[in-house]
Amino acid sequence: MAESAFEHLRARLADVVDIRGAEYLLKWDQSTYMPPGGAPARARQRALLSQLAHERLVDPEVGRLLERAEREVADEPPDGFEAAFVRVARRDFEREAAIPPAFTRAFGAHTAATYQTWTEARPADDVARMLPLLERTLDMSRTLAGFQGAAEHVADPLIARSDFGFTVAMLRPLFARLRATLVPLARRVQACEAPRDDFVRRTYALDEQFAFAAARVAEFGYDMRRGRLDPTHHPFAIEFSIDDVRITTRGRRDYLVEALACTFHESGHGMYHQGLDPRLEATLLADGTSAGVHESQSRMWENRIGRSRAFWSYAFGPLQDAFPDQLADVDAESFYRAMNVVRPGVIRTRADELTYDLHVIVRFELELELLEGTLAVADLSEAWHARYEEVVGVRADTDRDGVLQDVHWFAGPIGGAFQGYTLGNVLAAQFWDAAVGEHPEVPDDVARGRFDTLTRWTRERIHRHGRAIDPLALIEQVAGGPLDTGPYERYLRDKYEDLYPSAG
Amino acid sequence: MAESAFEHLRARLADVVDIRGAEYLLKWDQSTYMPPGGAPARARQRALLSQLAHERLVDPEVGRLLERAEREVADEPPDGFEAAFVRVARRDFEREAAIPPAFTRAFGAHTAATYQTWTEARPADDVARMLPLLERTLDMSRTLAGFQGAAEHVADPLIARSDFGFTVAMLRPLFARLRATLVPLARRVQACEAPRDDFVRRTYALDEQFAFAAARVAEFGYDMRRGRLDPTHHPFAIEFSIDDVRITTRGRRDYLVEALACTFHESGHGMYHQGLDPRLEATLLADGTSAGVHESQSRMWENRIGRSRAFWSYAFGPLQDAFPDQLADVDAESFYRAMNVVRPGVIRTRADELTYDLHVIVRFELELELLEGTLAVADLSEAWHARYEEVVGVRADTDRDGVLQDVHWFAGPIGGAFQGYTLGNVLAAQFWDAAVGEHPEVPDDVARGRFDTLTRWTRERIHRHGRAIDPLALIEQVAGGPLDTGPYERYLRDKYEDLYPSAG
Repeated sequence: MAESAFEHLRARLADVVDIRGAEYLLKWDQSTYMPPGGAPARARQRALLSQLAHERLVDPEVGRLLERAEREVADEPPDGFEAAFVRVARRDFEREAAIPPAFTRAFGAHTAATYQTWTEARPADDVARMLPLLERTLDMSRTLAGFQGAAEHVADPLIARSDFGFTVAMLRPLFARLRATLVPLARRVQACEAPRDDFVRRTYALDEQFAFAAARVAEFGYDMRRGRLDPTHHPFAIEFSIDDVRITTRGRRDYLVEALACTFHESGHGMYHQGLDPRLEATLLADGTSAGVHESQSRMWENRIGRSRAFWSYAFGPLQDAFPDQLADVDAESFYRAMNVVRPGVIRTRADELTYDLHVIVRFELELELLEGTLAVADLSEAWHARYEEVVGVRADTDRDGVLQDVHWFAGPIGGAFQGYTLGNVLAAQFWDAAVGEHPEVPDDVARGRFDTLTRWTRERIHRHGRAIDPLALIEQVAGGPLDTGPYERYLRDKYEDLYPSAG
Repeated sequence: MAESAFEHLRARLADVVDIRGAEYLLKWDQSTYMPPGGAPARARQRALLSQLAHERLVDPEVGRLLERAEREVADEPPDGFEAAFVRVARRDFEREAAIPPAFTRAFGAHTAATYQTWTEARPADDVARMLPLLERTLDMSRTLAGFQGAAEHVADPLIARSDFGFTVAMLRPLFARLRATLVPLARRVQACEAPRDDFVRRTYALDEQFAFAAARVAEFGYDMRRGRLDPTHHPFAIEFSIDDVRITTRGRRDYLVEALACTFHESGHGMYHQGLDPRLEATLLADGTSAGVHESQSRMWENRIGRSRAFWSYAFGPLQDAFPDQLADVDAESFYRAMNVVRPGVIRTRADELTYDLHVIVRFELELELLEGTLAVADLSEAWHARYEEVVGVRADTDRDGVLQDVHWFAGPIGGAFQGYTLGNVLAAQFWDAAVGEHPEVPDDVARGRFDTLTRWTRERIHRHGRAIDPLALIEQVAGGPLDTGPYERYLRDKYEDLYPSAG
């Protein structure tokens, strides 16, 4: 197809992907090594590259090429590269082209102002200052959703931006079921005596924490020749191509858990992108198929591996070698238990595995109520505190640790940003059961520090496809059935009833 | 001038500058932190951003806006911001627009292939493999020069790309005069006994070398809040905006001089860019006015300060504090002498201050002969060795350390890349004399570790103007006269006759 519309389209979209890759490097640098003085120019440069990528994607010529390419690939197998390429290009083109440039500019300006104000209002615990801005964000979020045409629920197009195919109608019962299981389980666990974990709060040099974590994720299969690990304030994984996928982490000298959990988590995201079929390089298919599936990979390495008894029966030796003084009086089982202490708190990003989803549930419920108009922005602060008491069982003293804690609502639309976290946990459980069903040796492998069977399986079944298989189809294909909270609920119940026998 | 052509032009050219800034970040990352896997995508992304910046600069609409803006600023003072902005924009537009896109693509492809081959041929010492490629580079360099219209010498347009206003007619006598002074001076010095410098070849931890150098350049006035220092293979300074100007360095554990000289050198480039008037931000004026003037700043900090007796009378104390064991038996005067050992060698980038220009002279002469056709590419290797014996007084055993040693001819046109190095040394001497003429306290300040008078003077007279004053005008204005090798010759003679009294 040398002179085909398909190849023309491919070359044009490669530029879109490469401009985005450049913009991502600017973001990575901003979060790692940029000196403070660089901020104003960096904001300009990132906005410019984003705009250039957007303009190239929605160029009318792309629309014309798409029509011709669709005809060209009509006889190709629908599961094949060409058909997937055109299908996803059409989807992205339509979604982006539906948003008027004037709206994009206005929303960008509003978001930048909101974010800037939030960076000042949050430390000052000044929620009143944010409410008028949030009001406008909510309006604009509804407008943004509306550009995508009719939808059953106003949040559906916002959710589809990161979790294509998912709707409020599907997610609401899922979240309700999880809530019904997790809230009482967390309460029972909370009533038990917590295992000893004083030793994770001893003093651990950050460099050595990062070195230990880096050695482990390299064992998992994260390829340091096609990536690297750097410290930052808000960890993330980011990719400039399939062969340059970087992860970031953070840690605390007085809390060993954070750097471990963060690094393992981001390595899951990183391995997803490193595992893409090289054929997807510089195409729109070169990304995770959805936020939820991406999160399934990060949560698998963070929790299913990184907080498992099997893993620590292997990894505690190396950890003790790295920190012989701090861990002299500790054994693998105690360390495993310390990694899994349940201590409900008000901060999502510091939540233990069991109560993490409760934080997401609060946000998901409040988002829908805001978008539906059943909750007024003016009442959000109080609704937040009340819902936290009801769901998580704690109440923050401040709005700083309440409605102002997460950046999401202050740096983008309201709606669509949180469901992926919990979808990831649910999917991680389904995928894990599928992997272990096929390869029953995986848990024993993990206990010997061998991860290649699992890594190969996830690469073959999930990673390599990128966006070439849509999320719902991928879930069916990998898990052998639809989205289901059952495996996740069973996993949590079994794990925590073992750790806290009196919670059974 | 809210709706003026000037403001439209300014907005368009700001995008050009910001795209270049993004491309420079990609380059910086490639040279510092990029994992090996990132290379192929990085090459694509950099080429794409360069092309986008070029297309935006030569857009016909820029030509139309330029004509209107020229009329708008006709009554503005010719030294003012607006007139300079339009003058330099016109110059860059004409120069870039004169080059046919097909040539740019062909030359880019040829250069990439040549560079790639050079990375293999150099270690293999295989000059024969490079000759056909160099032959084509030479042809294309002549073609590139020809696009700029008639010129007195074929190299003039190539020189003007980095040193605007300079011509072969001006530079040839200058290089001849320097050659006539430096060759015999270097021979006399070489015949003397070298001072002791064994102690700079003891073992120095790289991190501590870099920390010491970073502390010194911060004292010079290089602003770490608007920059940073990182190790790399081939050090450079690079800027993403006036407030994000980074420097890189390298060092050897067994040779203390390298990291010091490199870091001081790059800090001079960095301070030039950090010292630009903030008003020049995101304009084509936001750069050094020429390669030679840029190099005058780097060479001033590397040599006039960094290899001076005054500086080490201050800085040797902190150096000894950083390396107490290695320098226990050394004093400031001995260290100063060790920093200035003259040892003619075959590698330009390792040359001492006295013989450095001899390396540049060889390249400058050979370049002109190649472009004029009086030297055939087939004879280049032998001509190189013969000229080195004649000028530097040494002969390399290999072509790897001969014609293949520098990247310049294998990564761009032949012509225009080397004269700036020696111009920098000449100008550094003229500017130094002017600074000390106005502020006789500067040498004493340096001996007390105070650099602010000098830094303020260079910022006020040179840095802040950026490209708003053309190089020849700036030289007249700062040095109080035209380009003149006299001060540089006197400086070298005085310095080396003091260090090596029997060479007098």
